Amino acid sequence: MKISVYFLPLEIKESELKGKVAIVIDVLRASTTLIVAISNGAKQIIPVSSIEKAYELKQVLAEIRPLLAGERNGKKLPNFDLGNSPFEYKPEIVSGKTIIYASTNGSPTITLVGKLADATYIAGFVNLPSVAKLIEELRKDVVIVCAGKANSFSLEDSICAGMLTNFIMVERKFEPVGDGANASLVIYERFKKDIAGALLNSAHGRYLCELGFEQDIRLAAEVGIYKVIPYLEGKWLVGKFYGYY
Amino acid sequence: MKISVYFLPLEIKESELKGKVAIVIDVLRASTTLIVAISNGAKQIIPVSSIEKAYELKQVLAEIRPLLAGERNGKKLPNFDLGNSPFEYKPEIVSGKTIIYASTNGSPTITLVGKLADATYIAGFVNLPSVAKLIEELRKDVVIVCAGKANSFSLEDSICAGMLTNFIMVERKFEPVGDGANASLVIYERFKKDIAGALLNSAHGRYLCELGFEQDIRLAAEVGIYKVIPYLEGKWLVGKFYGYY
Repeated sequence: MKISVYFLPLEIKESELKGKVAIVIDVLRASTTLIVAISNGAKQIIPVSSIEKAYELKQVLAEIRPLLAGERNGKKLPNFDLGNSPFEYKPEIVSGKTIIYASTNGSPTITLVGKLADATYIAGFVNLPSVAKLIEELRKDVVIVCAGKANSFSLEDSICAGMLTNFIMVERKFEPVGDGANASLVIYERFKKDIAGALLNSAHGRYLCELGFEQDIRLAAEVGIYKVIPYLEGKWLVGKFYGYY
Repeated sequence: MKISVYFLPLEIKESELKGKVAIVIDVLRASTTLIVAISNGAKQIIPVSSIEKAYELKQVLAEIRPLLAGERNGKKLPNFDLGNSPFEYKPEIVSGKTIIYASTNGSPTITLVGKLADATYIAGFVNLPSVAKLIEELRKDVVIVCAGKANSFSLEDSICAGMLTNFIMVERKFEPVGDGANASLVIYERFKKDIAGALLNSAHGRYLCELGFEQDIRLAAEVGIYKVIPYLEGKWLVGKFYGYY
């Protein structure tokens, strides 16, 4: 089976995702936040591609009292219930809840990929061993799509893509294909000894530190502390629990 | 001064190129071919963003009998005088000539960057030391734009961007800024000992080998064998000769 890596959603061609398993990575912070939210009992999360769509959907779903969540430029939005820090998604707040989620890079990427791929899973460092195990069991070609940051390459997503590629290559059933997959492996090798340091020094990491979110970054760098894998069921993200790698 | 690296032209934001010196890299093969063409005496080369524009322009410039040059999917086009192999651009063919140039990735990137940046230069491995020397003398913020391949990340361009970043960092007057620049340095470090091998194994390199262009790839990997730097003067590429680094 093949593993391809795209560093930006802009690189995606429809034909390349058709019939494939897609893994979306947005380490800072959508992946991490969604994994924590589902792990802490959120019932379902609908990622939307814009703030306007989030407000519209809140009206449509008024009866089930959804929470509005997300950010622009890292900051919580007016009239939103939650921002994009995983520490806000505590069990007592999200358990059993429906969440409408509008982040800057992650949620548009998830909605785009969801339309094209056969199956769409969310990966971050925090659930990476479980995602690797799942992929090995699915035994299908895999396309890893990094969300990047505002249409720019992001180091943290490429390291995570490289780690995932590295993990699923171990048993030699999967083969990295294309320049993205090969470059991600090189980038992962360089930074694997200090993931937290790499994240803190990345462009997005530095920006989030300035906003006071250093603990979010340190959490995002903790490999395998969660076993849940958010995945799309139609337009909704729900959770699959998966054993350790 | 700052060095930024974009792996894809899609990443370019207008505000980030304004007032900057831009370096366009398309190792396989636009950069290499343009450098060879200018070095072999081509008077001026106008890069165009489509084949249609190339044909149109040929009519407009009929009086000066321009050569039509370029490719789609690596192959020479019908009614074109030249393809995209640097070996076609011999002195006896291009000397003193005006060339209209339509390649798949390189020429649209050059025309886009040319509209936004203060100055636009073309770099490949073959003229890299001269470009590094020029940048150091210009003493301005530099943005390196990789052309990529059909809107996808390309390994060969990222290695070249990393080498250029590495060369101009030596005297500590330039500082890499952002995730692209830092990742390019990591990728360059990994492949610097065998540039030709990396190019031959890249996705685009393999494809060109299949088409019979292995010698083009080996030429493109020869660091510093040319001293000329093509640059935009209005819409025209002309040459600046520059000493060794």
